[in-house]
Amino acid sequence: MDPRNLLTALRDQKPLVHCITNYVAMNVAANVVLAAGASPAMVHAEEEIAEFTPICGALTINIGTLSAGWAASMKTAVRVANDHNVPWVLDPVAHFISQYRKGVAQDLLALRPAIVRGNASEILALAGEAGEGKGADSGDAVEAAENAARTLASAYGTVVAVTGPVDFVTDGTQTAKVSGGSAIMPSVTALGCSQTALMGAYAASGPAFDAALATLAHFKVAGTKAAEKAAGPGSFQVHFLDALTATQPSHLASAIA
Amino acid sequence: MDPRNLLTALRDQKPLVHCITNYVAMNVAANVVLAAGASPAMVHAEEEIAEFTPICGALTINIGTLSAGWAASMKTAVRVANDHNVPWVLDPVAHFISQYRKGVAQDLLALRPAIVRGNASEILALAGEAGEGKGADSGDAVEAAENAARTLASAYGTVVAVTGPVDFVTDGTQTAKVSGGSAIMPSVTALGCSQTALMGAYAASGPAFDAALATLAHFKVAGTKAAEKAAGPGSFQVHFLDALTATQPSHLASAIA
Amino acid sequence: MDPRNLLTALRDQKPLVHCITNYVAMNVAANVVLAAGASPAMVHAEEEIAEFTPICGALTINIGTLSAGWAASMKTAVRVANDHNVPWVLDPVAHFISQYRKGVAQDLLALRPAIVRGNASEILALAGEAGEGKGADSGDAVEAAENAARTLASAYGTVVAVTGPVDFVTDGTQTAKVSGGSAIMPSVTALGCSQTALMGAYAASGPAFDAALATLAHFKVAGTKAAEKAAGPGSFQVHFLDALTATQPSHLASAIA
Repeated sequence: MDPRNLLTALRDQKPLVHCITNYVAMNVAANVVLAAGASPAMVHAEEEIAEFTPICGALTINIGTLSAGWAASMKTAVRVANDHNVPWVLDPVAHFISQYRKGVAQDLLALRPAIVRGNASEILALAGEAGEGKGADSGDAVEAAENAARTLASAYGTVVAVTGPVDFVTDGTQTAKVSGGSAIMPSVTALGCSQTALMGAYAASGPAFDAALATLAHFKVAGTKAAEKAAGPGSFQVHFLDALTATQPSHLASAIA
Repeated sequence: MDPRNLLTALRDQKPLVHCITNYVAMNVAANVVLAAGASPAMVHAEEEIAEFTPICGALTINIGTLSAGWAASMKTAVRVANDHNVPWVLDPVAHFISQYRKGVAQDLLALRPAIVRGNASEILALAGEAGEGKGADSGDAVEAAENAARTLASAYGTVVAVTGPVDFVTDGTQTAKVSGGSAIMPSVTALGCSQTALMGAYAASGPAFDAALATLAHFKVAGTKAAEKAAGPGSFQVHFLDALTATQPSHLASAIA
Repeated sequence: MDPRNLLTALRDQKPLVHCITNYVAMNVAANVVLAAGASPAMVHAEEEIAEFTPICGALTINIGTLSAGWAASMKTAVRVANDHNVPWVLDPVAHFISQYRKGVAQDLLALRPAIVRGNASEILALAGEAGEGKGADSGDAVEAAENAARTLASAYGTVVAVTGPVDFVTDGTQTAKVSGGSAIMPSVTALGCSQTALMGAYAASGPAFDAALATLAHFKVAGTKAAEKAAGPGSFQVHFLDALTATQPSHLASAIA
């Protein structure tokens, strides 16, 4: 499927995306999914998952403000998703900051997400390689992260998206790069987390590699547009939501290499 | 009381509104209540309710990101509110997605809120009728929801507000409709949840039917104004908060039929 | 150290600030810290604190949506911070609304924060004096709050910042006042909570008194700039984040008396 057609499919189908995400990102993620054209639902109670996850088009898991109760819900939701062939996306936010978080991230990865999205540091650490912390956008680190992404993708049968100044996505065989966006984006909180939620909406609308690629392109195109109007991180966030809505399927190709 | 006078009362009294709401809506709801002219307080610990709820002008309960601990706090707060004649508003968000959530919504409804606010699907399901999901804004569904609202209002001695492209409010005898707003509003998360919080502020300032009606009108008027300046859902949210502040009591009548 | 130089230091070092704050403020606080030039991290699980807090430049504790589990994490994080000489900032949000919250605030104060930030009502109540509630910005109340701040600062060896139309900061010996900002600011939720988070970033970059003073000045300068463009509380929030980024070290002096 041409990844550019996925945005058309997403807007036609308005898939319901079950998001278990962090407190910082919840509102932004819901607005990003709505602005792009799909339907988010933030639900985390174990009492609801068996009934709710199966009726969703996708599940997204983000470990940003992790705690034991939420980790349990995440694992339950993933198992239900797997049982019902609901694709799910893993965002292993800063999983290298504690042994506890590393453990939860590895447990989730072993449950085989359709897509993993992270920055270079997160993907390197997930593959068991060094490279945490600053400097992860240097040339060597980018190449190392791309290799780590290929390794992870092949080992777990998943698609891995590495986001940064230039995004990289692979299923272990196919690869693509996505350019654009703005240097302001790292100064706005929860955009990466929100991209994971949107990746769920795309994963509900088409194959995982195409879905990850289309999401990356949608963000880069909207980020470029928003930066043209933004005077700083506050106005960027406003224009970015507007631009997610304004982005048309035909715009996505320009970001993909 | 003329519902339009309630905005004057609200701004004079700046009532303190105790909000137990979902994680997605907390920030937006606080900003909506502040922008309109009242004072929000997000407090959910059972340890605090016995002292805090009685000093508030109203309590609002929203089950959006429900979990067992929060459901317990909600019920405790409602009982304290009832014991101290503090009016309270129920927002049974998507209560039809699980048996667990349905049960909590029915338990809360049985404690007799002053006002219930929901969309057509939620009100229909609360009255035990079908109609969940998409298409709830079709003509037949709107009429069915209005009938469900009357039934609920009479059965529970409450005011029921059904929000949608045209809002409907009834206490079982009186009815009113409210028009305006913008088609962008469903693309911004947590506006409905925030309206519930604002309905609490109005309920602290006057009788329940008038309070619900004034809140609906305030939102429709501000939504219409915001849409004139908005380029998408991001800028809509910004202009909407500005418009809630700019709305004057004399503006409300234009929205009410 | 000249407090104005702290902004330069903050942007050079981009300190990592461990924030345990309330649900309403999390997103805004993260955006404020990012917009100013530092790096926020919202982490609250007890499982992560022993590893994470020591690698941060500062810790900030805000009791806004308090509950028992979070209070336990706060105390654990503070003890770890103290053991590792990580400076920490206390924001005793509305601690006078319940005996429970008062107790937590006093327990935290006894652990000796580097800085306490609150409004006049909060600082008065923390010092055991009356003055809660409205009218706290009256002339007598301001003087009483300044005296309470001096008392607290001396008794606990801390810096106390009292925010309001004119901010006041003291370490028990030195004092300073900071002017500017906008009357719109109290109509935007979580700005005070976000200021506490930013105070952590400054405390990671220099001595506590200077850090508190520079943070107050940064907010007042940015608030003044934002008010020039804002049409209400929605647009104020947007322009305020932009202005936090645009504020230069040389701008801070104008706010300090």
